[in-house]
Amino acid sequence: MMHDRLTRDLYHEIRRIPLIDPHSHINPLQATARSLDDILGYHYYTELAHSAGMDQEPLAESVSPRQRVKAILEHMDRFDNTVQYSWFLEIARTFLGFTGDRVGAKDADALYDAAEKIFHAPGWEDEVLRRTNVEQIFLTNDFDDDLEGFDTNRYVPCLRTDDLVFHLAQPEVRQRLAECTGIEAADASSLKQAIGKLFEHFTSKGARACAISLPPNFTPTHIGNEEWTQAIQTIRSNPDDAAGAAVCARGVFWCLAEYCRDFGLPFDLMIGVNRRVYRLGVYQGQDLFDQRTSLIQYADLFNAFPAVTFPISVLTSVQNQELVSYSWIFPNVVTNGHWWYSNIPAYIAPDLRARLNAVPKTKQIGYYSDAYKLEFVLPKFDMYRRILASTLADELVRPGRYSEKDAIALARLLLRENTERIFLKR
Amino acid sequence: MMHDRLTRDLYHEIRRIPLIDPHSHINPLQATARSLDDILGYHYYTELAHSAGMDQEPLAESVSPRQRVKAILEHMDRFDNTVQYSWFLEIARTFLGFTGDRVGAKDADALYDAAEKIFHAPGWEDEVLRRTNVEQIFLTNDFDDDLEGFDTNRYVPCLRTDDLVFHLAQPEVRQRLAECTGIEAADASSLKQAIGKLFEHFTSKGARACAISLPPNFTPTHIGNEEWTQAIQTIRSNPDDAAGAAVCARGVFWCLAEYCRDFGLPFDLMIGVNRRVYRLGVYQGQDLFDQRTSLIQYADLFNAFPAVTFPISVLTSVQNQELVSYSWIFPNVVTNGHWWYSNIPAYIAPDLRARLNAVPKTKQIGYYSDAYKLEFVLPKFDMYRRILASTLADELVRPGRYSEKDAIALARLLLRENTERIFLKR
Amino acid sequence: MMHDRLTRDLYHEIRRIPLIDPHSHINPLQATARSLDDILGYHYYTELAHSAGMDQEPLAESVSPRQRVKAILEHMDRFDNTVQYSWFLEIARTFLGFTGDRVGAKDADALYDAAEKIFHAPGWEDEVLRRTNVEQIFLTNDFDDDLEGFDTNRYVPCLRTDDLVFHLAQPEVRQRLAECTGIEAADASSLKQAIGKLFEHFTSKGARACAISLPPNFTPTHIGNEEWTQAIQTIRSNPDDAAGAAVCARGVFWCLAEYCRDFGLPFDLMIGVNRRVYRLGVYQGQDLFDQRTSLIQYADLFNAFPAVTFPISVLTSVQNQELVSYSWIFPNVVTNGHWWYSNIPAYIAPDLRARLNAVPKTKQIGYYSDAYKLEFVLPKFDMYRRILASTLADELVRPGRYSEKDAIALARLLLRENTERIFLKR
Repeated sequence: MMHDRLTRDLYHEIRRIPLIDPHSHINPLQATARSLDDILGYHYYTELAHSAGMDQEPLAESVSPRQRVKAILEHMDRFDNTVQYSWFLEIARTFLGFTGDRVGAKDADALYDAAEKIFHAPGWEDEVLRRTNVEQIFLTNDFDDDLEGFDTNRYVPCLRTDDLVFHLAQPEVRQRLAECTGIEAADASSLKQAIGKLFEHFTSKGARACAISLPPNFTPTHIGNEEWTQAIQTIRSNPDDAAGAAVCARGVFWCLAEYCRDFGLPFDLMIGVNRRVYRLGVYQGQDLFDQRTSLIQYADLFNAFPAVTFPISVLTSVQNQELVSYSWIFPNVVTNGHWWYSNIPAYIAPDLRARLNAVPKTKQIGYYSDAYKLEFVLPKFDMYRRILASTLADELVRPGRYSEKDAIALARLLLRENTERIFLKR
Repeated sequence: MMHDRLTRDLYHEIRRIPLIDPHSHINPLQATARSLDDILGYHYYTELAHSAGMDQEPLAESVSPRQRVKAILEHMDRFDNTVQYSWFLEIARTFLGFTGDRVGAKDADALYDAAEKIFHAPGWEDEVLRRTNVEQIFLTNDFDDDLEGFDTNRYVPCLRTDDLVFHLAQPEVRQRLAECTGIEAADASSLKQAIGKLFEHFTSKGARACAISLPPNFTPTHIGNEEWTQAIQTIRSNPDDAAGAAVCARGVFWCLAEYCRDFGLPFDLMIGVNRRVYRLGVYQGQDLFDQRTSLIQYADLFNAFPAVTFPISVLTSVQNQELVSYSWIFPNVVTNGHWWYSNIPAYIAPDLRARLNAVPKTKQIGYYSDAYKLEFVLPKFDMYRRILASTLADELVRPGRYSEKDAIALARLLLRENTERIFLKR
Repeated sequence: MMHDRLTRDLYHEIRRIPLIDPHSHINPLQATARSLDDILGYHYYTELAHSAGMDQEPLAESVSPRQRVKAILEHMDRFDNTVQYSWFLEIARTFLGFTGDRVGAKDADALYDAAEKIFHAPGWEDEVLRRTNVEQIFLTNDFDDDLEGFDTNRYVPCLRTDDLVFHLAQPEVRQRLAECTGIEAADASSLKQAIGKLFEHFTSKGARACAISLPPNFTPTHIGNEEWTQAIQTIRSNPDDAAGAAVCARGVFWCLAEYCRDFGLPFDLMIGVNRRVYRLGVYQGQDLFDQRTSLIQYADLFNAFPAVTFPISVLTSVQNQELVSYSWIFPNVVTNGHWWYSNIPAYIAPDLRARLNAVPKTKQIGYYSDAYKLEFVLPKFDMYRRILASTLADELVRPGRYSEKDAIALARLLLRENTERIFLKR
């Protein structure tokens, strides 16, 4: 597959490094896929099939999983050029015994049947983890998740806070908050108290990060208690008051940063996504971005919280260029993975190269899977490992700056040790 | 020329694919150059010569074509590093029998004389088409073009609409519209009717697209008839009323999208150019851009017209990163060529790579020439084919994902079949 | 070090070209480092060490230079992946007799002692210039610099104007201006007169450029005398009046452009930096940027001063894409080096490639060191020369467009001849 020996050697050594996956959407109570539908129902496939011409009928609940899988596979030859297709091919080969070069409509039944058998075999979850060589996987937990019933050392809880910051105007969100904290958040003081309860609960269960995704125009600032209280009252009486919601969002966000500081949690910021841009898009396939955003919007935050580490994910290469510079200057800003639309080789490669050129190696979290099912951790990390091997070869080993051993040690930082030091050993 | 065999093999196979050129400025009544002045008068050469120090005197009408050609060639050694220079060298070699390695002032007379002879030989147009291996070429037609006197199967008409959207405040534009439609556009209703006439005329003559170039700050929205009528009346009485012109522009634009839907035409959007930035620049060498633009400005449009295909051209790589994501999500957004300032290898290569990574292969229109004279179709497409061959080799064939045959099939989609399916077979 | 022979051959030839360094912060009265502290005190090392976890105590004046050097070297293994580290390694090897592969805490004393001996040897400055193969170095002089005591042919004065444009509201800046010109700048007319004096003084001492760094949101426009006078009076009575300062800044900036025209000086614009973003950062390690800026902001300026050459430096690759296009269109816009955060191989390589594709070769100033101490000129230019050799090989020589000799001639333009023609031979 790789035509130069140095890259191949580095890649094979890098594969042996046990991974820690610092961000996923895995459900720890059902971490693996139960059927091929769970694999091809991943939004990358539904949205590419839809974009390439599939209408949304096969995605209806009434359609049988086998039929849905067939519909998606029937469109796959329209996007077999994509890296997302290559992830699926690797899953089919690694986990489903597929031996062909190309996968498509003709393979639907055989793959579906193989998945039925293999995914339900006893010990499948452990088997996937073993083959993937992953030790720990970070989760994305709703603020009212009870975090019960799973090994929080293997599946590390993270407090996801989009709902608190951006949807507190919705009565059901406030209801959920009241139910899980016993506090009715009617003003700044009680809302702070409620959020404090969440941090207590999450950290007591081993949570290691607070996380949020943010729209491109968001600029965090400190909001005084009085102004914040007023905004809380406004959205409680009028859920559609956009100005009130905006002030409240900034109030909650700043409060989260304060708790991150007090509880010693890094605050993962995933910057730049607009929700529901394609309004008739498939489930989870509606969000896009506006490249006109800047990390300068976060300067006050980074200055105000020197003790909080902010692992930053961005969506474009020009934001990555900002991120490289901000991470090189701010001690509390670190680079975090290759997010969503920028998680393709054409952007990972230049973004990684720039980070390796100018960000201290101890401040780079190399990659996360963002996976919904365990089976995706392997092909996604593998895509990254290939690029990492090739970049280390070109940038550091071939120019004589690093030995192969040094390069592997750097890969170990990116794939596990930085994650351990930044998130786990606090 | 290419130092690896796989790329060379792919390139030679790709060259054999008969092209369809989905966007040009060819005049079908005089498709080829009549003299070397027609070649070197292309704005790429006049603007580079001027930028490199040539004053504008040689460009005056009073100067003889031979003198003008000499003046430009005398400055060419200042920009013989550019890819535009390489297009000219290829034209000289392919069409003018030039055998040197470098072309410049010393070659002026010989090339001029050769062009006089060769360009006037009988059958020259067919010969250029044959050597270029191009079957069909899309045009850029003014809205009042009668589309008579040429083979509309070979030269495919397209309705260019910049004047209607952005210059309707000019009395002469309204005059032209009235003359070719017989309708005086005095309000929303009559303007709609007039535009409808244009679509009828164009589609009856085989037009296959509506097209427009747009400034970076344009955001299309639906304008109600009343508001639109008011704006039309404002610009009729005051051509300098910028606010009225802006509302009118949005009204016309939305109306064009409606007719594209009704007449089944794709709507080519070329996004991002500011006109007359360098006010004293050479003819067609005055326009530049502002990178601060986003496809999010078009979200309402893409949502409102799911049945209209929007082939999108952009000017920067960061817009291309947006385009890759928007094409991956919106079924009606497709990538279209490499436009103007981004049409150089340094940007084509990364932009193409990203499209191949993440946009369904059926949704990519690979390249168009944007040429004013037929002789440019060959060197421009050839630049693209070399990059395409090298990118296919690196991204798909060498990693074992595609066979060479698969790669050639993908090239065929990009160079003709997608254009056929999207524009021609509707 | 370089694995292909063509690149290696080109690199070795390019190294033989005597350099002219068109922008530095060298103090001509003390051009070389006096100790290793002068080398590792360069903000690139203090900021990377701080970013990687070093607190600022070792940077206090009270700390001995040897201790400070140790503290920074102790943190260096956290950023030995960076290109800045590689500059230091090259300095250690080239100038300090270091023979190891990696440099770090263990080498602190030996390197410190070696530097004490070597940097104080007689003739060290000449020796560094000789080994660096640099003939002339441009300076960055405060407007009230007397420009005495050094060879202005070797060290070329440049009038740096940030203080005049952006800090004239500070009484001490006006005081300095009054002292060095004998003119109290109380209105447009007297301020113009004072600035005229500066140009007289600087050009009489051999100054060859006027230079300034600009924030991302700056848009130069002409300010009438009356409005300007009003703004001058406002800031004199209220130094904190931001609106007055903004008008005054535009007035001074436009006036500088006028004098550049009258005195025949190029006006170096370094576009895009925000000052004091990381407010607690180390000295000179507080500035960052906002990618949302455009050269369109300078269109009026470029149009108004066709006789002034504007060498432009930018901070991001998307600005570079604009710069490539603006330099290709505007005769008075030229590309200038690779500035600050974009001065790393991951950005130099694509930015250079684009410039070589589309900007006349006579309009590109390849590189400047931005160095504070002479010892940095060599490693920084060497980084650039390696990338230049590799880019020339890939873009021009291997495709058969340039001979190796042509490529070396182009390198000579970028490394000295364009600088000579644009700045020195006026």
